[in-house]
Amino acid sequence: MINVVLLGAGNVAVHLFRAFSAAKNVQVKQVYNRSEKGLAAFNGQLPTTSSIDELVDADVYILALRDDAIAETAASLRQKEGLVAHTSGAVSIEALKDLPRSGVFYPLQTFSKDQPLNYANIPFCLEAKNPADLDVLKKLANAVSGNLYEVSSEQRKKLHVSAVFVCNFVNHLYAIGEDICITNRLPFEILQPLITETAAKVTRSSPREVQTGPAVRGDKGTIHTHLELLSSAENKDIYQLLTHAIQTFHGKKL
Amino acid sequence: MINVVLLGAGNVAVHLFRAFSAAKNVQVKQVYNRSEKGLAAFNGQLPTTSSIDELVDADVYILALRDDAIAETAASLRQKEGLVAHTSGAVSIEALKDLPRSGVFYPLQTFSKDQPLNYANIPFCLEAKNPADLDVLKKLANAVSGNLYEVSSEQRKKLHVSAVFVCNFVNHLYAIGEDICITNRLPFEILQPLITETAAKVTRSSPREVQTGPAVRGDKGTIHTHLELLSSAENKDIYQLLTHAIQTFHGKKL
Repeated sequence: MINVVLLGAGNVAVHLFRAFSAAKNVQVKQVYNRSEKGLAAFNGQLPTTSSIDELVDADVYILALRDDAIAETAASLRQKEGLVAHTSGAVSIEALKDLPRSGVFYPLQTFSKDQPLNYANIPFCLEAKNPADLDVLKKLANAVSGNLYEVSSEQRKKLHVSAVFVCNFVNHLYAIGEDICITNRLPFEILQPLITETAAKVTRSSPREVQTGPAVRGDKGTIHTHLELLSSAENKDIYQLLTHAIQTFHGKKL
Repeated sequence: MINVVLLGAGNVAVHLFRAFSAAKNVQVKQVYNRSEKGLAAFNGQLPTTSSIDELVDADVYILALRDDAIAETAASLRQKEGLVAHTSGAVSIEALKDLPRSGVFYPLQTFSKDQPLNYANIPFCLEAKNPADLDVLKKLANAVSGNLYEVSSEQRKKLHVSAVFVCNFVNHLYAIGEDICITNRLPFEILQPLITETAAKVTRSSPREVQTGPAVRGDKGTIHTHLELLSSAENKDIYQLLTHAIQTFHGKKL
């Protein structure tokens, strides 16, 4: 049994709590959050506290906190014997350098509180200062998911940038698609099979090999028509920049 | 039984042939393509021709052709009694205006020859000059998919632009993610659960409501770090433009 204390009450903390609760050999003993208010989601499910001095002993302290709160909160845990690991994609393990036992437990997924998730295939990116602690994090991740990776702080930072491209930026392109549908009295659901298939394709093939559309075809006429159809200056800019980027990437010139 | 002649031998023609072949009440009688070479994929499966004068009679002629070949090929079909419909997202029904019976049969999906597809949920965007012909196209689409929409030429043009955003541009963001993984000795598969979930989320919620990441959080520190980490000038430009677009869209200011 691995005893865990969760620090934080945001989307990642809520989902890790759900995942750990469903796992056989993990027990979440306590949730800490700086504000009482954030703890409401956990009330009645396990002991909670908003006082860092009241933290109980645990094998692992998971810091599921805002990036800028990690180092400061970690400083309060110097006296703890347990392993302290944060869940951030962007923060180096060095933020925990004053602790005897430190690590990173980064689940590479997009978390919204009200969206259920299948935890079994979430990639956990693990890092630890001591090899024995890496084993602890592996056991903890294995209790939830079969998808583990050893990722250094340097690699993780880059991975985090790439996640912004394939998740946050992609979602904004979906939002633009939805906007165009709404403006033209079309239901957004009309685009959903295309969205699903575009994502599914790159689980079978490299995105480089399955690029389609007017940019990679060098179809000047369609590109010109599309730019005329776009009424938003920002969407026009995005269209032009991404069209140019696709052509550079695939060695085409208009 | 609806008798169909397919004109074209590209990705859309190949997939429509597969879909029609699996349907009970559709028979593809012939495939035409300007060049013999393109017809190789169909050889032995049904009669083919590269001579427009040899087209057999059919209920529907489907023009699955390059946009710039549609009007010209349609002109050769003026003497035919059957309905002539093209499959393009970008071309108006007016391109077929000299024909007595014309329509549009636009499957909104991304087609690659070597990628199998589930045709049952592909949205078919239908338009016809005569109401009776719209019924023919509805029957034809219904034989393949349960997902039918009446979409005017004006709407379809806009839909086609939005498809470029949610498919072609999204795929390029995947390609950037893959590139960053490769450069940092990480397998691209590490990003795939995130890609799948990002696409799945917008089948349950509006993309506007599930936007995550540093841009919508107004997290200046992470944005600054990410821009420093990106080595490609083009990826930096994309990062900046999309970050700005997300902030404008969600009414945030850095």
